[in-house]
Amino acid sequence: MFEARLTSAATLKKVLEAVKELLNEASFDCSDSGIQLQAMDNSHVSLVSLTLRSDGFDKYRCDRSLTMGMNLASMSKILKCANNDDTVTIKAQDDADTVTFVFESKKQEKISDYEMKLMNLDQEHLGIPETDFSCVIRMPSVEFARIVRDLAQFGETVLICCTKEGVKFSVSGDVGSANVKLAQTNNFDKEEESVSIEMQEPVSLSFACQYLISFTKATPLSPRVQLSMSSNVPLVVEYEIAELGYIRYYLAPKIEDDEN
Amino acid sequence: MFEARLTSAATLKKVLEAVKELLNEASFDCSDSGIQLQAMDNSHVSLVSLTLRSDGFDKYRCDRSLTMGMNLASMSKILKCANNDDTVTIKAQDDADTVTFVFESKKQEKISDYEMKLMNLDQEHLGIPETDFSCVIRMPSVEFARIVRDLAQFGETVLICCTKEGVKFSVSGDVGSANVKLAQTNNFDKEEESVSIEMQEPVSLSFACQYLISFTKATPLSPRVQLSMSSNVPLVVEYEIAELGYIRYYLAPKIEDDEN
Amino acid sequence: MFEARLTSAATLKKVLEAVKELLNEASFDCSDSGIQLQAMDNSHVSLVSLTLRSDGFDKYRCDRSLTMGMNLASMSKILKCANNDDTVTIKAQDDADTVTFVFESKKQEKISDYEMKLMNLDQEHLGIPETDFSCVIRMPSVEFARIVRDLAQFGETVLICCTKEGVKFSVSGDVGSANVKLAQTNNFDKEEESVSIEMQEPVSLSFACQYLISFTKATPLSPRVQLSMSSNVPLVVEYEIAELGYIRYYLAPKIEDDEN
Repeated sequence: MFEARLTSAATLKKVLEAVKELLNEASFDCSDSGIQLQAMDNSHVSLVSLTLRSDGFDKYRCDRSLTMGMNLASMSKILKCANNDDTVTIKAQDDADTVTFVFESKKQEKISDYEMKLMNLDQEHLGIPETDFSCVIRMPSVEFARIVRDLAQFGETVLICCTKEGVKFSVSGDVGSANVKLAQTNNFDKEEESVSIEMQEPVSLSFACQYLISFTKATPLSPRVQLSMSSNVPLVVEYEIAELGYIRYYLAPKIEDDEN
Repeated sequence: MFEARLTSAATLKKVLEAVKELLNEASFDCSDSGIQLQAMDNSHVSLVSLTLRSDGFDKYRCDRSLTMGMNLASMSKILKCANNDDTVTIKAQDDADTVTFVFESKKQEKISDYEMKLMNLDQEHLGIPETDFSCVIRMPSVEFARIVRDLAQFGETVLICCTKEGVKFSVSGDVGSANVKLAQTNNFDKEEESVSIEMQEPVSLSFACQYLISFTKATPLSPRVQLSMSSNVPLVVEYEIAELGYIRYYLAPKIEDDEN
Repeated sequence: MFEARLTSAATLKKVLEAVKELLNEASFDCSDSGIQLQAMDNSHVSLVSLTLRSDGFDKYRCDRSLTMGMNLASMSKILKCANNDDTVTIKAQDDADTVTFVFESKKQEKISDYEMKLMNLDQEHLGIPETDFSCVIRMPSVEFARIVRDLAQFGETVLICCTKEGVKFSVSGDVGSANVKLAQTNNFDKEEESVSIEMQEPVSLSFACQYLISFTKATPLSPRVQLSMSSNVPLVVEYEIAELGYIRYYLAPKIEDDEN
């Protein structure tokens, strides 16, 4: 028996929005410690890693570890039927081929259940090595989303340069070229709006804009985003999920030959 | 001479939105007692019945009964030119082949008139027998619209089961199955949000989702909707139009052979 | 060296919206006195004339007159990257083949620059004679936009009749005919909402709706619009740009043979 309950469906809806553009289907690994999802995106370029800890749920029970393969478009359809303040419970039998989502309104006058067929998906277990990064940038998530969306209009590749002073995003293309510079800020009174940089050494790396845009679908999950970069290793874009865990996206830098 | 005036164009705009998805054109029967419209939808499956009583208008004059055949897409275009708080007057000569809509702003500084050609439409006079229903459900109209829209994503047919405890809407399809249960509520302090059921005997009937969705275009007309059901007779979905009358939609249940 | 700065990008964004539907590209003539743009629309029917005076900018420097040919779709893409309250600076070298737009956030923590290639455009220098008009109508710009949009649904040509009492807009087409009458108002307490008419002699002229609709893209620039009409000369539709200048659109009336 598996059962996990959240008092607000809003979080789960946002989690799904954060992954469904990159993944058509996904395996959710459920165990005593929580729910994990790890998968390459549909084009096998970037990697998504989601962790929802069991202690962040309002109720969590997992008698036996199980893996549930879900079609994310179907799951998204179902979650859109929940009101943001509905309680949501995910339920499955140990050897079930279906999962059930139960939505309860606050006053219990409306109870909905949606049963969805599970899928058998090939599991790729991916080792993600822990790395020390040359630069770790923390900034408002809406600012990152805005920059990526703005610059993607002018070119396919964005160059991110990080120094102690700040971070610069650059693209160039047919129309011309564009640069957006963010200075490191020191306003500790409004920490949520600050740009902070932890730097061992400066880094300049290029990335495909289209994947960064997909990553920013996670913006509603957190007011802050963290970018971790080192030469020759994938960029990590991380959004915290309050009290529950995090979602991390990994994207390898473009090497120079790729850029033209 | 026919002349009917409402001090707010908003109601008439909502009435038109409530019928124009089901009907391309319609005959408005105008008499001393008011305006009536009765028609099968374009696919001849459901029936729409609209009554606007003469005493609900701010001014109403109908010297001789007349029938005005109107193209509803054209009428909708015209009504969209009115501001919600404009006074609207519908005018026609006794033997006219045009109808005129006059919109006046509150301060009279803007007066618009739109003259539209009338159409000769075949009239089907449909007798609708009065029935005693096994179940009459009253609920918030937005809740009904939400349930119908949510469930229509998962199948073409919705089963509505009504008992004393409450009403259950169910669909099943490729993705899986879904049930939404509403309990009868007894909060007389917020009557508008309550779900109330008058039941002679339990009823379970299946209906085509697509028509129910069209009916819910009437939602802006009223905070409440009433569903009346008996075995083997059409469902009646009714929305009151404050002070003026009502709109009713009739839809025959699917018999079991139809359901697959 | 050319440099022009505005403390709010919003105005420049609105100016571009006001011209980009009519013009694919345009030559901005920059001189000591300010920035001028004059061009026939893409179909060579109407004329756009834009004036931004140098003294309306927060900083303005133009060492040598220059003409910058810009692709307006590209320029619009760039301006959409500015926040409304960003400071915007337009920069070019005297003999440059690029122009640079710099956006600075209020607290200077974000600075973006967009460099765009310039184009060589054929320059048509158009003499616009000053005319005394038979009728000059001033009215709320949103009201004018609403009337033009409403009536364009019913026909391609709008007849504008101006007398001392007011102005009437009329169209007719397949659906029927429509008239919108605005009375001259004398409420000096709410001057912004008034309709005022200066008339030497009554005028009735017909115009193609589609161009009037394009002109109303300038509505966000000003709460008021001014229509100037005389028989046999182009209509002038003018929107003031607060502190900076104006945008004027010219459109020749249709002669009767054109109307069918």
